[in-house]
Amino acid sequence: MNGVVDGTSARRIGIDVGGTNALGVAISSDGRIVAEDRRPTPRGDDSLRCLLDVLVELSESLGYEGSLGVGVPGLVTRKGVLRAAPHLDGVADFEVGRLIAERLGSHVEIENDATCAAIAEWKLGAAVGVDDMILITLGTGIGGGMVANGSVLRGSNGFAGEFGHMVVDPNGPRCPCGRQGCWERYASGSGLAMLARNAGFGVDNDGEARIGGADQNSVQGEHVQSAARQGDSAALVVIDEFCRWVALGLSNLTNAFDPEMFVLGGGLADGADLYLEPITRWFRELLYQPHLRPLPRVEFAKWGPQAGAVGAALLPSLSLTERPSTGI
Amino acid sequence: MNGVVDGTSARRIGIDVGGTNALGVAISSDGRIVAEDRRPTPRGDDSLRCLLDVLVELSESLGYEGSLGVGVPGLVTRKGVLRAAPHLDGVADFEVGRLIAERLGSHVEIENDATCAAIAEWKLGAAVGVDDMILITLGTGIGGGMVANGSVLRGSNGFAGEFGHMVVDPNGPRCPCGRQGCWERYASGSGLAMLARNAGFGVDNDGEARIGGADQNSVQGEHVQSAARQGDSAALVVIDEFCRWVALGLSNLTNAFDPEMFVLGGGLADGADLYLEPITRWFRELLYQPHLRPLPRVEFAKWGPQAGAVGAALLPSLSLTERPSTGI
Repeated sequence: MNGVVDGTSARRIGIDVGGTNALGVAISSDGRIVAEDRRPTPRGDDSLRCLLDVLVELSESLGYEGSLGVGVPGLVTRKGVLRAAPHLDGVADFEVGRLIAERLGSHVEIENDATCAAIAEWKLGAAVGVDDMILITLGTGIGGGMVANGSVLRGSNGFAGEFGHMVVDPNGPRCPCGRQGCWERYASGSGLAMLARNAGFGVDNDGEARIGGADQNSVQGEHVQSAARQGDSAALVVIDEFCRWVALGLSNLTNAFDPEMFVLGGGLADGADLYLEPITRWFRELLYQPHLRPLPRVEFAKWGPQAGAVGAALLPSLSLTERPSTGI
Repeated sequence: MNGVVDGTSARRIGIDVGGTNALGVAISSDGRIVAEDRRPTPRGDDSLRCLLDVLVELSESLGYEGSLGVGVPGLVTRKGVLRAAPHLDGVADFEVGRLIAERLGSHVEIENDATCAAIAEWKLGAAVGVDDMILITLGTGIGGGMVANGSVLRGSNGFAGEFGHMVVDPNGPRCPCGRQGCWERYASGSGLAMLARNAGFGVDNDGEARIGGADQNSVQGEHVQSAARQGDSAALVVIDEFCRWVALGLSNLTNAFDPEMFVLGGGLADGADLYLEPITRWFRELLYQPHLRPLPRVEFAKWGPQAGAVGAALLPSLSLTERPSTGI
């Protein structure tokens, strides 16, 4: 499979609907991006009808030949219904799969965007040939997708892979989801910023974050990365603590799934050089029975912002071998 | 599949090797136990060679016709090697699969005992017809097995389902595994006893546990169950706290896997009448986005102590459809 999607020559369109833009790609049968286009994601009243227009426009501009997959940021049922999407306006049980198929005249596959990114890494990225892999996107929050025993694991309703809301400390900070101590409160971009604030970081007038800086509320993960790259020892301590939280979640997921490999993507993948060594070190420390098993490989994603669209483009070929849905 | 194992008439032998006894069953093609036998699990020097003798003896006494599966309490690789088993003497990379096959002259399937119990519930118990299910055994510790998308999920090395060592509080009590705050420190029989001791329970001279009882070290989960059944309000509070910890883990696993159903087994399944309502209530409280998804069903296991042996007996028929091993 390395680099080859399947034996047909038809181009495959994938669109990743983000909070800001909808990014479309066309990929060739050998797995290369042969066209790319984007449109702003519609907002406000009537945004869902406009989103359908955008999906049709992008498909046509990219040379649609009957194969379209769409990645969306939210909970997607196995029947292609977007149940909720916090970053899209007005979404509640939006039957995007059926509606876009009606417009285009053929079946369209819809999936969660992080699951799409996992498919991109599995079929054409860092995890080619790996039968058991987990993708974690470390962004503002945490997203996830998973391949188990050589198949995409979707779960009974299509909602598998919501790793970010695994509770890792029931007395931890309050999460917008209503609970406390979810993994993404620590092991995401906003988690990194929180750990930095807790360590005393604030942003000074020069726009740099340092211990004792005046404006704690403005501290972002990027500030900590930047300070760490300049050798700020306090920033490196915060990065180390952050990496310990990432590794704690990887260790929990290893106990449950026993994957061969983790692929880390999302916005924080820019800082792979800072994170990979401490994550791996803490993962070895926290792994259950490390003397009895190999440490799962940890690598950063090969695809950047195009991961979701590339994985979406691969959805129709995967679905041919899938079992029928049983959930909602 | 309900109640029917497959179309052949050969009897299938399953043996569950426990810390005290090895229990063997023969099941008929319609899924009934038609014979049962047991032997003490060999201990001390030479126990592994003696264990092979026991497996052969039990198979023969149960009418072996070429189909044997064995469940063992430990980490089993996909090649049938028992890497470690804390309750068996002298086990380290014990090639039980190959050695017993040599003795019997045909292939033998080996699996972790909790995975066997999951298979028993999935094929012939509480979860018949469910494509995505998780079995949790609540005993001294926590064991687990899982079916995803209609297949047993084994993981890359065969070690999937070790849910008990999911860290749910990194500042929690020390676990024998070396880490802190593993789920089984709270949501197992020993966890229930710890929660009772923390609440002030001790065993009095009459052998009953109550608040302020003299001997805190002797408090067991069974004491709390017994007191709760007699209406002791402090015991009911402890049971409620215990059930909250159980539900926290179910919620975490739901985020990751999105199962249709959980089946709860193990020694604490005796107290199903005490636990089912509070576990379900807390699970509903702790579930991520409960308004967008059905609450996974929670039921107690149909099979009791025979679950592991019954599931082991079913292993050879499952393995026919499995993909080859890729891990250690």
